[in-house]
Amino acid sequence: MAHIIVDAAEEILDKEFPVLDHGFVRLVDYNGGDSRIVQSARISYGEGTKSYRQDKGLINYLMRNDHTSPFEMVNFTFHLKMPIFVARQLVRHRTAKMNEISGRYSVMSDEVYRPDRQHINKQSDSNKQGRAEVVDDELASQVMDGFTKDKELIFEQYNSMLDSGIARELARIDLPLSLYTEMYWSMDLRNLFHFLKLRLDPHAQYEIREFANTILDIVEKVCPIATEAFREHNLNATNFSLTETDAIKAMINGEECPLKGRAKEIFEEKLN
Amino acid sequence: MAHIIVDAAEEILDKEFPVLDHGFVRLVDYNGGDSRIVQSARISYGEGTKSYRQDKGLINYLMRNDHTSPFEMVNFTFHLKMPIFVARQLVRHRTAKMNEISGRYSVMSDEVYRPDRQHINKQSDSNKQGRAEVVDDELASQVMDGFTKDKELIFEQYNSMLDSGIARELARIDLPLSLYTEMYWSMDLRNLFHFLKLRLDPHAQYEIREFANTILDIVEKVCPIATEAFREHNLNATNFSLTETDAIKAMINGEECPLKGRAKEIFEEKLN
Amino acid sequence: MAHIIVDAAEEILDKEFPVLDHGFVRLVDYNGGDSRIVQSARISYGEGTKSYRQDKGLINYLMRNDHTSPFEMVNFTFHLKMPIFVARQLVRHRTAKMNEISGRYSVMSDEVYRPDRQHINKQSDSNKQGRAEVVDDELASQVMDGFTKDKELIFEQYNSMLDSGIARELARIDLPLSLYTEMYWSMDLRNLFHFLKLRLDPHAQYEIREFANTILDIVEKVCPIATEAFREHNLNATNFSLTETDAIKAMINGEECPLKGRAKEIFEEKLN
Amino acid sequence: MAHIIVDAAEEILDKEFPVLDHGFVRLVDYNGGDSRIVQSARISYGEGTKSYRQDKGLINYLMRNDHTSPFEMVNFTFHLKMPIFVARQLVRHRTAKMNEISGRYSVMSDEVYRPDRQHINKQSDSNKQGRAEVVDDELASQVMDGFTKDKELIFEQYNSMLDSGIARELARIDLPLSLYTEMYWSMDLRNLFHFLKLRLDPHAQYEIREFANTILDIVEKVCPIATEAFREHNLNATNFSLTETDAIKAMINGEECPLKGRAKEIFEEKLN
Repeated sequence: MAHIIVDAAEEILDKEFPVLDHGFVRLVDYNGGDSRIVQSARISYGEGTKSYRQDKGLINYLMRNDHTSPFEMVNFTFHLKMPIFVARQLVRHRTAKMNEISGRYSVMSDEVYRPDRQHINKQSDSNKQGRAEVVDDELASQVMDGFTKDKELIFEQYNSMLDSGIARELARIDLPLSLYTEMYWSMDLRNLFHFLKLRLDPHAQYEIREFANTILDIVEKVCPIATEAFREHNLNATNFSLTETDAIKAMINGEECPLKGRAKEIFEEKLN
Repeated sequence: MAHIIVDAAEEILDKEFPVLDHGFVRLVDYNGGDSRIVQSARISYGEGTKSYRQDKGLINYLMRNDHTSPFEMVNFTFHLKMPIFVARQLVRHRTAKMNEISGRYSVMSDEVYRPDRQHINKQSDSNKQGRAEVVDDELASQVMDGFTKDKELIFEQYNSMLDSGIARELARIDLPLSLYTEMYWSMDLRNLFHFLKLRLDPHAQYEIREFANTILDIVEKVCPIATEAFREHNLNATNFSLTETDAIKAMINGEECPLKGRAKEIFEEKLN
Repeated sequence: MAHIIVDAAEEILDKEFPVLDHGFVRLVDYNGGDSRIVQSARISYGEGTKSYRQDKGLINYLMRNDHTSPFEMVNFTFHLKMPIFVARQLVRHRTAKMNEISGRYSVMSDEVYRPDRQHINKQSDSNKQGRAEVVDDELASQVMDGFTKDKELIFEQYNSMLDSGIARELARIDLPLSLYTEMYWSMDLRNLFHFLKLRLDPHAQYEIREFANTILDIVEKVCPIATEAFREHNLNATNFSLTETDAIKAMINGEECPLKGRAKEIFEEKLN
Repeated sequence: MAHIIVDAAEEILDKEFPVLDHGFVRLVDYNGGDSRIVQSARISYGEGTKSYRQDKGLINYLMRNDHTSPFEMVNFTFHLKMPIFVARQLVRHRTAKMNEISGRYSVMSDEVYRPDRQHINKQSDSNKQGRAEVVDDELASQVMDGFTKDKELIFEQYNSMLDSGIARELARIDLPLSLYTEMYWSMDLRNLFHFLKLRLDPHAQYEIREFANTILDIVEKVCPIATEAFREHNLNATNFSLTETDAIKAMINGEECPLKGRAKEIFEEKLN
């Protein structure tokens, strides 16, 4: 028993996986794996059931029935480097433990996030929090130039204040949200899956989705069975409301979709 | 029983208490008060003990002995407006519930924090995270000018991007950490006292201490007895290590302080 | 703003709603209501959107899209009296704050849970954690007699130990799991909905479901819109796995159900 | 970096350390160690400070100043076997993750806790929750006989109900609080220290103190430096209230103790 070593995880342990222009995700450590989930669950069911279920069946059963506590027995510790505006979304997941670099102690380097050309988009009209189509070349250039000017001025001021001996905690207050920060970030698998569900959603901001995707890949190395169950029963599953479930029953019986208007649109999005 | 109405709290409910140049703390709601703490504690002790203790005695007993669960039964909901760099310290207190304005949905106004003249300080040498003496007028003016230039350029770029139809979630990435944000922030009294203990500490950054001070004043209106107990047994109490406690015993017996070097310095700071 | 008073909730505030033979649920206090959810959500979306959504639409939107943080701004404090074996299930919901009567401080009265005649069931074969059919009269009488003998002996010993001056914390160690306990129990609405989802499930033990049902009724008085949304999008909604969702699409198109065996059974249970 | 292997911890990993008559504590896994605390803290302080502090100095600094987040980066998973009345105290520490054997799934064996002869005590008069002197032989024998009769009857009824096919979740309701239960129990070091502080206190019940002592020994194997710092600055440290700290100053200056009555008693207990 004791330490659970997962070969595929050992291979990627401590490696930096690049995300965006200067960021990365690095798995610092993990604790447990699919077999820890099974061990933990079996303590609830006692000795007798051990021979009746295969690990995979049990993990799928747990996932399907929201028996979440065994997934809390697997821990991940990541080293993340990400823009502050992404870190501010990350930190909303309050079950994570975290140590972040502090601009009070440290001089911040001038690394800021700059979107790739194909990720400079128009504001979406339909989705108040989203992006629409990629902008044309002229506008893209203007945006890039603007970003460049911001950075030049801000870091000139910042460094000038530091040179004059101004307190770091004060000199840093105009640093931009695009500034890269670093942190140790630790979460258990249950809460990590919840995080991934929300931050892999197409409505999440592109930049945090990139981090979530890399984290998912790493989690899959450590817990391949649980991650497969997560994809099947949660990430790629669909929650149909009571009304929608009734509509499904009617439609399977050959009836027309009884929903109308916006409700019908939402339902059809779920089905497609 | 039911709703506990505290007169002194009703008077300040919903009022904005200004903090820093554009910020505020507003008590949106509270739930419980000193008498809820007593009620909750008494459920643990059963009927019989009711007549033996006065409320104040019981609350002091609970505070002194780390019986924290009754303090968790009182809730506070605040509306806060604060610079993002302060909010980033606040959010580290993971027991708070929170809803914050989102730069993905909303156009951010150009309110940024600018320190008063007397809060522009040199970097402390002894304290890596702190401020030393106030800077001279010339340097202060340079800093102020720098801040002004930052703000002009950054918001010009931001507004220009919005005018061009760039997605809000993208246009905002160079906004500064000094930008004011707003949030609903809710915590129970036990965790609020823990927050206050840490953020009223002289090593906490001046700007968050200002918010903590205002929050403490409001908490005192709602729970005057518990707050008095907090000041006496926690905020203004001193934790002496095993070695320091032994030193105290020796010194009370008329002996010399047995501590040396840095240990002695720390001890003397605690005593003075 | 400030305190939100919900008339229907005021009527039931502080009333004991009986559950099982000696238990009850009493709403001690609440903080917020549907309008607090809306207020909190709107802080995220900023001023501009206020006129575009009705409260009900917004609450349903939040529920449907797992925007859970505004539901965390509503708090409930209950006074519960329940058997210890039920309390041991309740306490697994770790987001609740709690003060429970202590058998170290208080002499416990001899109130124990005894199931009604129609809730004495056989062990289920198909469901390892469940009950099957009601037992016949003869067996029921034996069970009842057994329970009576247990209680007589146990409390005779308990009281005899107390009379001899044995420490309460020791005398109580053989008291039964059926003993009634009391507690203050406080939770926010988001976590309360999660609790209700799990403990209203037909696989939850009958006795805790009875408490959950009463709690749901009370929550509905305080937050009728949110509770309706919870029923529609969560409690009575169905989560279909990726494979099941594909099956639904096929069947709506007139194809046979592509699932087989146990997977098909689970799917059909969800549909019926 | 990656996995941190602590030799002294490897030696005890997976071993059962007996506690009370049938219980045990077993370290299933750990994640991190003293060096993880240091690593995590240094991410906050940035590269530059690395050479200035030794690990031990840094860990003591963190402990002394309530910089708790780096201690959250070390995880422990225990397998515990303990009486239910102890487990009910344990579960109040809500930061622990837990999987416990369920009497709904499993037939419970008839192992119950019976105190050693020297731990059968009278009720304390001064301490409402405590034990006083050990009882005489005659009374001890009566208590033991009473416990024996309880157990015989209760398990006879339990087994008879199971033989008759009564549902396990129902048959178990009169099982005693002294029954042994088992669980996986996982906590980070920061919260474990908090648990230990409270449950090693002389006012905690003897039986849970026994578990806490064994857990402390195990934690010390994994994190010897942090545990030493915990003993010095927390477990064996003393919190003196504002008034008491003023009294200390006066007394060090050769004055009489200015405190009177109960306040003086409490102060003198702290000093001795």
